[in-house]
Amino acid sequence: MTMAKDKKSPRPKAETPKGFRDYFGAEVTERAAMLSKIAGVYHRYGFEALESSAVETVEALGKFLPDVDRPNEGVFAWQESDDEGKGGWLALRYDLTAPLARVYAQHRNDLPTPYRRYAMGPVWRNEKPGPGRFRQFYQCDADTVGTASVAADAEICAMLSDCLEEVGIPRGDYLIRVNNRKVLNGVLEAMGVSDEGQAADVLRTIDKFDKVGEAGVRELLGKGRLDASGAYIDGVGLSEAQAEPVIAFLTSKAADAAGTLANLRAAVGGSAIGAEGVDELEQIAGLLDAQGYDAGRIELDPSVVRGLGYYTGPVFEAELTFEILDEKGRKRQFGSVAGGGRYDDLVKRFTGQSVPATGISIGVDRLLAALREKGRIGGTVQGPVVVTVMDRDRMADYMTMVSEIRNAGIRAEIYLGNPKNFGNQLKYADKRGSPAAVIEGGDEKERGVVQIKDLILGAQIAENATLEEWKERPSQFEVPRGEMVAKLKEILAGQG
Amino acid sequence: MTMAKDKKSPRPKAETPKGFRDYFGAEVTERAAMLSKIAGVYHRYGFEALESSAVETVEALGKFLPDVDRPNEGVFAWQESDDEGKGGWLALRYDLTAPLARVYAQHRNDLPTPYRRYAMGPVWRNEKPGPGRFRQFYQCDADTVGTASVAADAEICAMLSDCLEEVGIPRGDYLIRVNNRKVLNGVLEAMGVSDEGQAADVLRTIDKFDKVGEAGVRELLGKGRLDASGAYIDGVGLSEAQAEPVIAFLTSKAADAAGTLANLRAAVGGSAIGAEGVDELEQIAGLLDAQGYDAGRIELDPSVVRGLGYYTGPVFEAELTFEILDEKGRKRQFGSVAGGGRYDDLVKRFTGQSVPATGISIGVDRLLAALREKGRIGGTVQGPVVVTVMDRDRMADYMTMVSEIRNAGIRAEIYLGNPKNFGNQLKYADKRGSPAAVIEGGDEKERGVVQIKDLILGAQIAENATLEEWKERPSQFEVPRGEMVAKLKEILAGQG
Repeated sequence: MTMAKDKKSPRPKAETPKGFRDYFGAEVTERAAMLSKIAGVYHRYGFEALESSAVETVEALGKFLPDVDRPNEGVFAWQESDDEGKGGWLALRYDLTAPLARVYAQHRNDLPTPYRRYAMGPVWRNEKPGPGRFRQFYQCDADTVGTASVAADAEICAMLSDCLEEVGIPRGDYLIRVNNRKVLNGVLEAMGVSDEGQAADVLRTIDKFDKVGEAGVRELLGKGRLDASGAYIDGVGLSEAQAEPVIAFLTSKAADAAGTLANLRAAVGGSAIGAEGVDELEQIAGLLDAQGYDAGRIELDPSVVRGLGYYTGPVFEAELTFEILDEKGRKRQFGSVAGGGRYDDLVKRFTGQSVPATGISIGVDRLLAALREKGRIGGTVQGPVVVTVMDRDRMADYMTMVSEIRNAGIRAEIYLGNPKNFGNQLKYADKRGSPAAVIEGGDEKERGVVQIKDLILGAQIAENATLEEWKERPSQFEVPRGEMVAKLKEILAGQG
Repeated sequence: MTMAKDKKSPRPKAETPKGFRDYFGAEVTERAAMLSKIAGVYHRYGFEALESSAVETVEALGKFLPDVDRPNEGVFAWQESDDEGKGGWLALRYDLTAPLARVYAQHRNDLPTPYRRYAMGPVWRNEKPGPGRFRQFYQCDADTVGTASVAADAEICAMLSDCLEEVGIPRGDYLIRVNNRKVLNGVLEAMGVSDEGQAADVLRTIDKFDKVGEAGVRELLGKGRLDASGAYIDGVGLSEAQAEPVIAFLTSKAADAAGTLANLRAAVGGSAIGAEGVDELEQIAGLLDAQGYDAGRIELDPSVVRGLGYYTGPVFEAELTFEILDEKGRKRQFGSVAGGGRYDDLVKRFTGQSVPATGISIGVDRLLAALREKGRIGGTVQGPVVVTVMDRDRMADYMTMVSEIRNAGIRAEIYLGNPKNFGNQLKYADKRGSPAAVIEGGDEKERGVVQIKDLILGAQIAENATLEEWKERPSQFEVPRGEMVAKLKEILAGQG
C-alpha cells in the first residue's frame, strides 16, 4: 500500500457528514408508500401539491439576524459569489411553512383564495446531531392559506384523522387533541397579566404541566419550586388568586365537549378574546361532530400546551395512545406524531398584509416508527427470484429466463457476480432475501428441465425439520423448462 | 403605509433565489407518477432504492481543488462551524453517482455484491442559470456496482427500454444506442495516437461529428477548418492516413449488428483493447437479441460519442425519435432523454480498489417534456367538486355534504372564502377546474333537495350553444338531498 506516500490526493473518507444518514431499500419505499397514501387523502380534500425549491434566500426564510453579518445558527447557509464578488446569502429550508409563506406572497395573484396546499420533502437543520436526531429529515404538511374560518381548522383535524387511519393507525389508537391560543390569551387577561415578559414566563410554566402536574405549576407560578435535582427554580411571582385561571384552564377537560367548554368559559372570565377562543372551539367541535368525528378521534383538550407559544388560534396535536416500551423497558404511550394550528402573520412579513392560515405537519419518521411498532411495515421484505449462472457461456439463456419471469410480474434478477463458486450464488440469494432460485446446468438444459429451490421453505426445514420431514417436504423441484414460471408462481403463492 | 420608515425590518422580497423555481399541483404529481412507474421497473429488475443524504463532505464529492481553499464552482458549498471555529466543507450533491460511490465504499461489507441500486431525487448545480436551466433539478439513476460482466450493461439497456415504454413512450418512438469507449481506444491505438493530449484533441473533434459531419471531422483531425462564422479552427494535425480509423469508426454503422461489428473490427485493426471492445458490443447485442430487444429498440451505433470521454466501457444513450417543432418552428427529433455507461474507477478514490460499475441516468425534466409532447400528461386536470356556502350558519350541513362526497371517493372541498358574494364562489370553482358545484340554499334545505351545476357542460354551452340547445341541455339539476352523491357520480362519469 502506498497510501501514506500519496501526498497529492489523500483518500477521502467514505462517510456521510455528521448528523446525516443514508436510507436503504425498504426504508425508502415504505416511506414513499406512506407519503403516497397521505398525499391521496390530502388530494381528496382538495389540497394541491407544492414543491418549493430546497434553497431559499436567507431573507425569505426570515432567519437573518439584522445586527449580525451571518445568518443564525439553525440553518445551513452560504454566501453566493457573483461576478462582482460576494452576493446574497442562500440557505436550505428548515421547514415547509416558511417557504409556503414566500410562495404565497410571490404567487398570490395566480393562486386560488383560499389556497389549500400540501408539501412533502426533506428539510435541513444546522443543529448538533444526537442519537436518532438528524440534520436532514422529512416533513409532510398541509395548510390552508387565506381564510379565517374555523371550518378550515376543523377540516385540517378531520383530514389528519383520515390520514392516520389511511396509513394504518386504527381508530382507538390515536387521538387528535384541540386547544386554542386565544383561550389562553383570555386566561392571561383574566389573570391581569398584560406584561409580555410575564406572559412568556406563564407560557413557559404551563409548558411544564405535563412534567410537574397541577401542584408543580402552582408553585412555579407563585414563589418557585424545589427541583427533583435539588435546584431551586424561581417562580413567576403571581399571587394564588392570579394563578387560579391558568390552573382552571389546564384542568378544564371534562367528560364531554360541553363540560369542557363550560369550564373554559369560567376560566376566561370576562375576557373578550377568551370568549372568542371558546366560541371557536365550540364551532370546531360542532363541525367535526356533524361529520361523525366523535370525541374518540378528535377532542377538545386544554391541557395541550405544545405550540401555544407559536400559534395564534386553534392548536392541534395528534397523539398515538397505544403503549410501547421505552429504552429502559418502561411502558409509555407512543406520543405525538403530528401537530399544527392557526398562524396569521407569516405572509405579512412579505406583503404587509395579514393573511390568515392554518395547517398541520406530520412527523414522518415518528409516524413510520409507529407503523413499525404496530407491525404495519418493516416485516421481512421479499427479495427477487435469483436465476443462477451454471454455465458462463449461456448468459443469453439465463437472461431470457429472468426476462420471462419478470414479464410474468415477478421480481427477478440474474446472478452477476463471479459464477465459479455455486455456493456463493446461493449465499447471494440468501442475502437478497430471495424466495426462490432457478438452476439450469448443462444436464438440465439437455433434458429440457430446470431446478427451482424454494429458499424460504428450505431455510425453515434446515432450521426445524427432522430427517423424516426433510424427505417428505422437498424444497427443490425439477420442472420442465416451459413450466418454470407457473411453478415459481405456485411457490410464491404458497409462501405468501 | 409605513414601509419606508420601518427601518428595523425591511420587508424581504418574496422570490426564489436566481435559478430556482417552485413546482405546483400537476407538475409535482405528474413527475411523482412517472418516477413511481420507473421505480416499479427498477424494482422488478431487482434494483434496491437508495436515498443518500443531500449534503456530502466536499472531499467525498471529489470536487475539491487541492490548491484552492474553496471548493470549485460547480457545487453549492459552505464551511461547517464547530466548537473550535471553522470545520470542514460541506456541499450539496451535484449528481447521484458521486454519492453512490461514497455509499458503496462506506457500506460495502453490508451490501450484496453486485449491488443493484436506484436513486431518484433533486441535485444541485452552482452554475449560471439560463432559460429552462435551473440550479436544482431531478435525476433518476440505476446502477450496478461490483461486476464487470457485460450482462450488467445489457440488463441496464433492457431496463431503460422497459422504463420508456412503461411511462408511455411507444415502441418505435425511441431508440437506445450503444457504443463502447474501448473501441475508440482501439481506434486511437490503430491511429498511433498515444499522447494523452492528442487523444483528448481527437475526442473533442469526434464530439463535433453531429455538427460538422464526416468531411468536417476530416478537416479538424488534419490541418483545420474554416468555421461557419469565418473563424479558422486549428486542426489536430494528423495525417489523412492516421485519421482514417476514426472516420471508419464514426461511420461504421451498417444495416445490422453483424455488419456494424465487422466494420468496427476493421477500424480497430490489430488493437487488443479495440478487439475487446468489439467483443463486448457483440455480446451485448447477442444478450439483448435473445430477450427480444431488437434493433428497433436497442442498436449498436458507433456514432454515439456523447459520454465517451467520461465512461470506460459500453456507453448508452436513449433518444426519442419523434419530431417536434423547435423554438424557430423547424422540425427536429426530440433527442436524448437518458444516458449512461460503464465507469470503473469511482469507488477507487475511497478504497484504493477498482470496482467495476455501470449505470444509467434518466433526464427527468426532458422525459416529462416528451410525455407532454405526446399528450400523455399535461391535459386539463380535473379539480375538486365544490360545495358552495349559501348560509354561513349551516357550515356543519355543508361540511357533512362534502364529507359524504369524499367518502364516495370523489375529490371535493367546501368553499372557505367569504361566502357573501355567490358569484365569487363560482369564480373560485372555475379557477379550481371544478367539474361540478353543489348548492343548498334555505329553500332547497326546506324542500330536501340540492342543486348541482355541471360546470364543464355549463362552460361548453356558454361558449357554443344556441338558445335552443341551451334550453334542451340543462347544466343544472335539482335532485333530492339523498341522491346528491349518485347524481355527482353520473355527471362525472359523463364528463370522463
